[in-house]
Amino acid sequence: QGILERLDAGEIVIGDGGFVFALEKRGYVKAGPWTPEATVEHPEAVRQLHREFLRAGSNVLQTFTFYASEDKLENRGNYVAEKISCQKVNEAACDIAREVANEGDALVAGGVSQTPSYLSCKDKTEVKAIFRKQLDVFMKKNVDFLIAEYFEHVEEAVWAVEVLKESGKPVAATMCIGPEGDMHGVPPGQCAVQLVKAGASIIGVNCHFDPEISLQTVKLMKEGLQAAKLKAHLMSQPLAFHTPDCGKQGFIDLPEFPFGLEPRIVTRWDIQKYARKAYDLGIRYIGGCCGFEPYHIRAIAEELAPERGFLPEASEKHGSWGDNLSMHTKPWVRARARKEYWENLKPASGRPYCPSMSKPDGWGVTKGARELMQQKEATTEQQLRELFQKQKI
Amino acid sequence: QGILERLDAGEIVIGDGGFVFALEKRGYVKAGPWTPEATVEHPEAVRQLHREFLRAGSNVLQTFTFYASEDKLENRGNYVAEKISCQKVNEAACDIAREVANEGDALVAGGVSQTPSYLSCKDKTEVKAIFRKQLDVFMKKNVDFLIAEYFEHVEEAVWAVEVLKESGKPVAATMCIGPEGDMHGVPPGQCAVQLVKAGASIIGVNCHFDPEISLQTVKLMKEGLQAAKLKAHLMSQPLAFHTPDCGKQGFIDLPEFPFGLEPRIVTRWDIQKYARKAYDLGIRYIGGCCGFEPYHIRAIAEELAPERGFLPEASEKHGSWGDNLSMHTKPWVRARARKEYWENLKPASGRPYCPSMSKPDGWGVTKGARELMQQKEATTEQQLRELFQKQKI
Amino acid sequence: QGILERLDAGEIVIGDGGFVFALEKRGYVKAGPWTPEATVEHPEAVRQLHREFLRAGSNVLQTFTFYASEDKLENRGNYVAEKISCQKVNEAACDIAREVANEGDALVAGGVSQTPSYLSCKDKTEVKAIFRKQLDVFMKKNVDFLIAEYFEHVEEAVWAVEVLKESGKPVAATMCIGPEGDMHGVPPGQCAVQLVKAGASIIGVNCHFDPEISLQTVKLMKEGLQAAKLKAHLMSQPLAFHTPDCGKQGFIDLPEFPFGLEPRIVTRWDIQKYARKAYDLGIRYIGGCCGFEPYHIRAIAEELAPERGFLPEASEKHGSWGDNLSMHTKPWVRARARKEYWENLKPASGRPYCPSMSKPDGWGVTKGARELMQQKEATTEQQLRELFQKQKI
Amino acid sequence: QGILERLDAGEIVIGDGGFVFALEKRGYVKAGPWTPEATVEHPEAVRQLHREFLRAGSNVLQTFTFYASEDKLENRGNYVAEKISCQKVNEAACDIAREVANEGDALVAGGVSQTPSYLSCKDKTEVKAIFRKQLDVFMKKNVDFLIAEYFEHVEEAVWAVEVLKESGKPVAATMCIGPEGDMHGVPPGQCAVQLVKAGASIIGVNCHFDPEISLQTVKLMKEGLQAAKLKAHLMSQPLAFHTPDCGKQGFIDLPEFPFGLEPRIVTRWDIQKYARKAYDLGIRYIGGCCGFEPYHIRAIAEELAPERGFLPEASEKHGSWGDNLSMHTKPWVRARARKEYWENLKPASGRPYCPSMSKPDGWGVTKGARELMQQKEATTEQQLRELFQKQKI
Repeated sequence: QGILERLDAGEIVIGDGGFVFALEKRGYVKAGPWTPEATVEHPEAVRQLHREFLRAGSNVLQTFTFYASEDKLENRGNYVAEKISCQKVNEAACDIAREVANEGDALVAGGVSQTPSYLSCKDKTEVKAIFRKQLDVFMKKNVDFLIAEYFEHVEEAVWAVEVLKESGKPVAATMCIGPEGDMHGVPPGQCAVQLVKAGASIIGVNCHFDPEISLQTVKLMKEGLQAAKLKAHLMSQPLAFHTPDCGKQGFIDLPEFPFGLEPRIVTRWDIQKYARKAYDLGIRYIGGCCGFEPYHIRAIAEELAPERGFLPEASEKHGSWGDNLSMHTKPWVRARARKEYWENLKPASGRPYCPSMSKPDGWGVTKGARELMQQKEATTEQQLRELFQKQKI
Repeated sequence: QGILERLDAGEIVIGDGGFVFALEKRGYVKAGPWTPEATVEHPEAVRQLHREFLRAGSNVLQTFTFYASEDKLENRGNYVAEKISCQKVNEAACDIAREVANEGDALVAGGVSQTPSYLSCKDKTEVKAIFRKQLDVFMKKNVDFLIAEYFEHVEEAVWAVEVLKESGKPVAATMCIGPEGDMHGVPPGQCAVQLVKAGASIIGVNCHFDPEISLQTVKLMKEGLQAAKLKAHLMSQPLAFHTPDCGKQGFIDLPEFPFGLEPRIVTRWDIQKYARKAYDLGIRYIGGCCGFEPYHIRAIAEELAPERGFLPEASEKHGSWGDNLSMHTKPWVRARARKEYWENLKPASGRPYCPSMSKPDGWGVTKGARELMQQKEATTEQQLRELFQKQKI
Repeated sequence: QGILERLDAGEIVIGDGGFVFALEKRGYVKAGPWTPEATVEHPEAVRQLHREFLRAGSNVLQTFTFYASEDKLENRGNYVAEKISCQKVNEAACDIAREVANEGDALVAGGVSQTPSYLSCKDKTEVKAIFRKQLDVFMKKNVDFLIAEYFEHVEEAVWAVEVLKESGKPVAATMCIGPEGDMHGVPPGQCAVQLVKAGASIIGVNCHFDPEISLQTVKLMKEGLQAAKLKAHLMSQPLAFHTPDCGKQGFIDLPEFPFGLEPRIVTRWDIQKYARKAYDLGIRYIGGCCGFEPYHIRAIAEELAPERGFLPEASEKHGSWGDNLSMHTKPWVRARARKEYWENLKPASGRPYCPSMSKPDGWGVTKGARELMQQKEATTEQQLRELFQKQKI
Repeated sequence: QGILERLDAGEIVIGDGGFVFALEKRGYVKAGPWTPEATVEHPEAVRQLHREFLRAGSNVLQTFTFYASEDKLENRGNYVAEKISCQKVNEAACDIAREVANEGDALVAGGVSQTPSYLSCKDKTEVKAIFRKQLDVFMKKNVDFLIAEYFEHVEEAVWAVEVLKESGKPVAATMCIGPEGDMHGVPPGQCAVQLVKAGASIIGVNCHFDPEISLQTVKLMKEGLQAAKLKAHLMSQPLAFHTPDCGKQGFIDLPEFPFGLEPRIVTRWDIQKYARKAYDLGIRYIGGCCGFEPYHIRAIAEELAPERGFLPEASEKHGSWGDNLSMHTKPWVRARARKEYWENLKPASGRPYCPSMSKPDGWGVTKGARELMQQKEATTEQQLRELFQKQKI
């Protein structure tokens, strides 16, 4: 059954997690370029990660083609060991995803993301040509559906959707924006409307913000569609990092990005709360992005097991709400084998010299955070704005 | 070259990371029992993790035989899907480790750890018989050397060393203790002396405490050996979690163990500091335990690259001290491409409702922590002690 | 010179600090009732506090008549030792304030605040009668001007202003509201307009929120007046506690209110930043409320000394930005004798088991905080709302 | 009844609080010199503070003669407005204390503290002469007993006790040391022995450390006396700041000293815990030092009211454990009117950008803290030590 048949039937579809961050920690992706040449260089590592997500409950395996557009790979060419061609990277990604998808009940989704071409002001025709090259591979490899993800500008996302729609396959579109909207100031509700009008059947957000903020944004998208009397399935694939303090451009502007984010990693219990709230909000395509490891995806599947009627395979190795601690020899560890314990735990950082929040470096913080920050240190943003203008970025 | 030849020649030997925690997050190990039946059930997952550590710089691949003694597997049998035999688990572990070791320059070490038999007061003969069963497999599979690790009682560790020494292979022994010593109150210096006298050529600590506390403990061991005019190589394989607040029995007593430890995860920069300090202390076998992911091991290899003269393979995908951020489009992200930035960053948790330290649940906190706690809440320990006595644990 | 002459001439007028909190810590006011019977019971304590504020730079001494309306004193009568009459309390307050004001260059302001009568739905005539009783005393004692302060409902504040205007004296009006407006949902800008139309020459906020949030609120008031083409002087008398996490009703709903607020107390440097921002925002009547001690008021006077051309008397005992540390014997303490040090210090709490933020208990959190909280724990507010409705408060 | 009669009879004697810090905040003492010329310049302010402590339950009023030795006043002469003579300052201090003591049931204690003469290596005769000048005033003014307090070196403290003993009056001696002992490395137990042998009838600690650490130190003193079979009454007057992170020389080395200590201020509930622990440890002279405000002293008196059989006068304005909140209109505030609430509250700082602990600047941290710090940043202390040696301090 295809993605739309599932969603139309009211099924919950579980996405997969964040490949670039997980594979960076495993040693196969370079932070900075974040390109997916590992599909050619180390297919076994990519295959294993797909397998873990499948086992954790993912119903969709996204081809590992993030930032695999030709302009991006060339731009970052110096990082790619032996100038592996864009086509090869995309083809290998499709093959690996399909191979693993066949081991279980999963769909393969071909994904495109924002391009350097758009950011360097290339025109619509040129940018669309970039997307079309990836789409050609996806068609040749016959993926099940398509995702346009990680777009900061709705304009580019619309172009991507238009290209992907040429295929006749279902198209999902997610933007990496928060409640304040895209980088040109288009609010989430309007972004949603434009994406649906362009042909997306599933819309939502991915990356850049924590689960809570991401759900807020999807809620605004939902309201935008309602106001416009449009219909689409909703989707969320947030970060697995707590980012209450981050600004308009999300976690990239946090001082901890990308090598000091550890204390922000969400627990499995945080994810269970996220899955429940996403479900209650009407979202039926629920997954994750950077920071999501297989156990986070499993937590979605476990939280929604009552609705879905089954547990994922990897739950063989996991007790519900810690109940596998009930046989521990120490009474105080046994006392942790219950839902209330983990639900209410406020986990300590073990870092007494560190603060709980950071001030984002960048320009353009979220409305709430900006208000808070303006109070605290009015100059920061102004200084950054000046820096910003000098550098003409 | 064998482990002792390397160490005797002054080489730095890099260990590998924590299998049970990493595979728990990947969906192959159950928290609570923590047994390694995945070697039989999902060899590809175990193989991939070995490969990642090898690629990250590990010179030793430990067989994934933690808690793989017969008494432990039986005890936890209800968790093991199809009553996989102890022998099979151990054999598969040896085969997988050897297969991957052959892909690079690594030794295979067969490992034994503390047993339920000892804890339930079985006698020396019975406990030794347990170790001997695992040793038989290690001899049959011809591992390169042996490690007795994760012992809370030096008496049991000595018995393990004595059995392992029967093989004629080099023996390393690490205890999961802190500066206060073993669970019977034997101080680290004395533990070290007993282990060396029993035949261990390499001694140190693993698990239960963060890098800083672990190095303190190894320092006490070193001083104990010096005082006794004994010689041995030093080894450390600590947690990758910050645990300044944990008690005598280590991180198990922290309220966050095992499902809420995320905010405590150490960064790669924390590990670089650890590697440097370990080296300066004279430790030459430097690895990790629970929480260590491949990128943490890579951080050891990168910090000590000047001394060793080479980088690990996985450094192809990593810039030194963030230098791969130097081409970022945003000036404030480019500003992070330098050592001073990451060295001095105090990473925020993004958790404003959480504290920085927890009070351990258990009885028997470390001397320093206990002093601190006694000041703060004198009753806690007493209450726990009473609980402890009532439960006769 | 009267208050309006001073403000019209562009002078900065410095208010005084929080009497009920300061005198509670000194042992003369009971938390809970917060009534000012100390003016009769212990005039020397009230006199001394006035003197300290005068010495610290206050240009206005407010009569200690907070909650000194007849209905409040009766209501709380069981707390008042010997049923001291409302008139006596108010008269003594005027006498003490005048006595100290005559020791320096200060005006005496008679103050009224919100009444139990309004909260228990008495009508306009009855509520106004309450204010009039206090006003009679103020007229008899000939205070210099009048302040209606600590109003949560603009309707009652308007009634108070109307009564006070009957006197012919200048009237200032401050509400204890945040950016979300009064308890009936009237936004700050509209509150400001109503107060000015009722006759207030000076408007602003006092109490309930920290300096940063309070300035935000005054800014909204200012914008409201501009939009309505009305003119008034601006005034701010915030808390001396950090309250970024507090809700619509301010610090009363914080779990720490009123006996655990210590870790939130602002430093003198926080106040210098506040004074500068208030000035930059166009506020010319700058003081404080609960938590303000004499040294906080001095910090306002010191920050604005360049504009005013003089320092307060108490600055004889204070060096600018810590310069009195420059002769310390320890080099690291001497290093603190500079502005950059204190400006940038992020002071630690010494409380590793405590969080940095709390969730307010009450119903009706600020918009920003509510959004944040909804993300985190959607049920809290709903539960509270239900509780709220059940209790029919 | 004299101090010894009271203590010998098993009475609890409550000390007073910290004059220099309280009067600094009120505008009468300059941080840095910390000298008490206010006794002459502003006797009403000193008198009022004495009165507040008396009302809060103090049984002893210490003359405000801290740092009032001739060498100190001269040394800091440039800070003292009109070269007020040492004799005048001391006489006025005695007169004010006596005047207020006569208003209630309190003793007057004349106090001397460490001298610049000792620190600049003057000999025993010279240093003793300094103490004798202050003693002459105390004898002339006939104080009830004498206190040698705030000594970092036991040698100087012994000289002070020897001088004070010449008077024939009872002598108490407290050092500002932590568990590591005095600045020459003499452990607390030995300090206690030397002080008692020199003639002190009451010994203990004051200032520099928080209540918990201070009680630890007094415990060590008690054990030292027991080992030496000596007897003395025990006394503690700690800081009202949390200082778990401070070093051997106490809070002076914390980066927050003296102008950023606000987030460390202890609550009344912390003080009740302190009073109970002090009592349980056998201490019968229980008071406070820097940071103690009248309400902190009242908390001692309230905690020990069951033992003493009465409440202090200022408890008229205070409910036990918040019970005065029981009539609040909001249910969630009423819920705070109980002991369990305040006992268990972990108060938030409202400072999400600040850490919970600081690293002391200075050289010579406490053993526990040093161990913790060595782990974290081995170089800090060494760097400081070098700095220290260069500066030859």
